[in-house]
Formats: sequence, structure tokens, C-alpha cells
Amino acid sequence: MAKQKKGQKAADLREQLRVPTGPVDLTSYDTRATPGFDGSKDDGKAALDDLGAEVSDWQERLFAEGRKGGERSILLVLQGMDTSGKGGVIRHGAGLMDPQGLKITSFKAPTPAEKRRGFLWRIRQAVPDHGMIGIFDRSHYEDVLIARVRNLVPPNVWEKRYDQINEFEAELAASGVTLLKCYLHISAEEQKARLEARLDDPTKHWKYNPGDVDERKLWPDYMDAYHAAIERCSTPQAPWYVIPSDRKWYRNWAVTTILSETLKSLNPEWPEADFDVEAEKKRLAET
Amino acid sequence: MAKQKKGQKAADLREQLRVPTGPVDLTSYDTRATPGFDGSKDDGKAALDDLGAEVSDWQERLFAEGRKGGERSILLVLQGMDTSGKGGVIRHGAGLMDPQGLKITSFKAPTPAEKRRGFLWRIRQAVPDHGMIGIFDRSHYEDVLIARVRNLVPPNVWEKRYDQINEFEAELAASGVTLLKCYLHISAEEQKARLEARLDDPTKHWKYNPGDVDERKLWPDYMDAYHAAIERCSTPQAPWYVIPSDRKWYRNWAVTTILSETLKSLNPEWPEADFDVEAEKKRLAET
Repeated sequence: MAKQKKGQKAADLREQLRVPTGPVDLTSYDTRATPGFDGSKDDGKAALDDLGAEVSDWQERLFAEGRKGGERSILLVLQGMDTSGKGGVIRHGAGLMDPQGLKITSFKAPTPAEKRRGFLWRIRQAVPDHGMIGIFDRSHYEDVLIARVRNLVPPNVWEKRYDQINEFEAELAASGVTLLKCYLHISAEEQKARLEARLDDPTKHWKYNPGDVDERKLWPDYMDAYHAAIERCSTPQAPWYVIPSDRKWYRNWAVTTILSETLKSLNPEWPEADFDVEAEKKRLAET
Repeated sequence: MAKQKKGQKAADLREQLRVPTGPVDLTSYDTRATPGFDGSKDDGKAALDDLGAEVSDWQERLFAEGRKGGERSILLVLQGMDTSGKGGVIRHGAGLMDPQGLKITSFKAPTPAEKRRGFLWRIRQAVPDHGMIGIFDRSHYEDVLIARVRNLVPPNVWEKRYDQINEFEAELAASGVTLLKCYLHISAEEQKARLEARLDDPTKHWKYNPGDVDERKLWPDYMDAYHAAIERCSTPQAPWYVIPSDRKWYRNWAVTTILSETLKSLNPEWPEADFDVEAEKKRLAET
């Protein structure tokens, strides 16, 4: 184990942030907390930078494995209220890695053609190939979040989806996909401050949508829906992690750390040569 | 203009590396040259890092424009012999940007289903959406490179493709795609050294393919095919750039600089609010 640096955690962060099976109470979480990290904001940013070399080395090993017949991949699902920082995690965390090994999919409201095919169809299209790290910016969980809060489908339809999601995710896990589902947890006050900041900054106006305020008014309903989704869809093979996200630097560090720990535990090895190395050296020398 | 730093070039690098219309002689290029850059390897790496903030700021502006109805995008086509560093440019150059704004496509040998649809079909699938930077690791040019050298199709088929490519690229340009085509130019000696290095390093064996030596034996044929492709498909709206690539640091810096200059000349503006900012501030305050 490397020498402990300021702020660095000793234990596996996944253990600390993984949602236990059983009843979930989101209101019991402190959204400004920094579990597993005892340093300042600057320490947190430095710790994230420090992860860069490590996480991209592991990523390349997984990628190499996938090129040589390995069938494993990782799928990071990011969910959270508007402004919770799904994009920020991708920019600052995933941005540390080689973009060739990433497959990022941002899910918007489904089109009529997508709706006709069932809510999981478009999700299945985006499952990462072998060796890749897939990242979902929103996901199939919207189909039990906004769909439930906004009555986009009748209750008997969304009610069935929790089981359908669990079956789907079990199928993915069985086929070699390691799932990490992160709920970026912010407080209603923090969201207000972030929306105000967007309105105050003309270079951020493009990120603001008047509909964000309408959704915000339904905050308690969304919390209920998140609650149900996290409680009913936390499984050993597809756990949910609750990431306190009022502090952006902690959020970015925590998600990237969980990703790094996951890569490490998959422990992909550099593939062995599937050719005769000495013979190839001779052939090459003759050219 | 910012103060000149060590190694930084004054003029537009695109002017220096763009292939002029008319006859092209690839043998006249020095693959170890560093046009437009007068510093050392360390200076080059520092200059690339320095580009990071600038290029990702421009990238975000283009992305924002695309979200708000803008119809422009960039397509960077990377071609070059094995080991020329297409992947290295993506890792070190594109890796400086936000992966959310990148769409990277790596083209392998076409599948039977792809072949049936004509050589440009799969290329059209991968054209970047509005606001995105698309990167092709190999491209439709393989259909006049390996297809020609290896007689994968008869001469009367590949012969027609140059015009088809020019028409296709003109169509893309007319629809808002700015094309940058970079040929990463290495010498046969440099390729030999890089293949040897892959054979000597077990963590690089996965990148080695015995077929690479077979292709290498056809070096002069490939040079003829590149020559024809670059000469016949250099157009004002879709220019080719020849990037001397024996020095990896120069290659990464040069391609990223060309990309940065292109973003700057597109000059995407932060989109104006399409809502009443003051009214939204009031609505938000009431929540």
C-alpha cells in the first residue's frame, strides 16, 4: 500500500458509499459530507489529479483485455437532480482517462420511435463493448423517476419496471458488465444556488432551462421516486452508491475513486502474445 | 496576441502543414521535422499541456452552440501507417478535452453487412452531431488505401472512389462539418523501431499483429496509395495536412494546434438566453 497522503482514504470507498440492502432514507444523508476524505478542497482536487495516471493505466489494461477476447466491461450510471453534476463528473473524472476507451451516452426524453420499442431498448443499444467503460448520463432510471413523478405512464406500467430493471441488470452482470450506479445527492438549497449561478452568468445561460424550475417544485416527489428506485434496485451485482454532491470536488473524487477501485478489483492483466515473439522479431528484422 | 513562449509558433500552423493543391511528393517531407515549433521535446510537451484549457474552452462553446440550434461540427480524420500514432493523438490531444463533446470512431475491416451498403454507409453513420468534435481513427480513406494495395476490389471500383469521396466531403462541408484530414507521416525506419519496441515490451504485445509485418513489406505501394489519396482528395473545403510524426510529441502538439486553430476560426459564441432571465430569477426565488 502506498504511503498515506493528506486526504487519502485507507479503506475501500465503495464499502462506505454503497447503499445497504433494506430500507433507504435519503434524508438521513448529509449532502455536504465528505466520507472517506479528511482533507480540504485543494487536497481533494490534488487527490483527483493523482488518480489520473492510475485510473488510465487500469483502463488501458481493461481495453487491451477486450481487444484480445476478454468479455468484461464497466458501466457507470450517473443519476441526480438538475445541477447535481453528472456532466462535471464526466468532464473532470472520466476526462482523466483515454477517450478511446470510454463510451458516453446522454439520454434525453425518448423519441416516439424509442418509446415504441420499450424503455430498455435504447439502453441496450448503449451497453459498452468488451473492454470499454460505458458512462450513462441519465439512464433507464428516468423511466421510474420522471415517468413516475410526471405520470408519463400509468402506475401499473412504472410499477413493473423495478423488476424489469433488476432482471436487465442481472443479465448485464452475467454477461460480464460490472455495474456502478451513482446517485449524486444534492440538497434543494444547493440546487437553488447553482441555478442562480447559471442565471447570473451569461456563459452558463445555455445550460438553463425554464423547465428546471418546474421540476424543482416537485422536489419531494422526486426524492420519493429516487428513494424507491434506490431501495428496490440495489442488488449485490448492481449496487447503488449515494455520493454526497454539494461539494463538487468531493463528488468528482468519490466517483472516480469508486471507478478506480472497481478497475483494480477486476485486475485486468496485459494479454499474453498470441504469436511467437521470437519468430516475429526475426521476420521484422528481415524487412 | 499572447506573449511568445519558448517553442510557440507565431503564424497559423494550418498554413504550414496544409497540402497545396497540385502534385504531391511525400518523399520530399522530412518525417523528423518540427515545422512551426522551435523548442525541445520538453517544450513541446509543455506547449501541448498549455493548449488544454484553451482547446476545451472552445470545445465547450461549440458544444453549447450545438445544443441551442447551431449546426456546426468538426470532423478530424486520422490516417497513417501502423504505429504512426493515431491512438496517441487521441489519448494525448483529444484527451485534453471534455469527453462529452467527442465522438470517436475506430474503423476496422468492414463487416459483410457494411460492405453490402457501400463503403460510405458506415462512415455516414459516424458523422458527428451538431456541436460535437468527431474523430475518425482510420476512415473511408482505407477504401482507397488497403483496398487498392491489397486488391480488395477491382481497380475500376477504387478508381471511382476518389470522386465519390470528394463529393461526400463537399456534402458534409455544406451541411456544417469542418473537415480536418491529418496524415501522420512516419518513415519506414521509425516504424521498424516502433514495432521492435512493441515486441520487446510484454505490456505492448496486445498492440502487435503479425499482419503488421506483411503490410510493412508493401510500404512503397502504400506510399503510392497515400500519395494518390492526398493529391486527389485535397480540396479547399476538406484539406489534407501532412504531420511529420517521427517525433511523437510534435505530432500530438501539431494536430491539437490545428484543431485549436480551427475551433478558434469557427469562433462559436456562448448562446444567448432563449428565456427571460429576470423573470426566471423571480420564479426561482419563489421556490
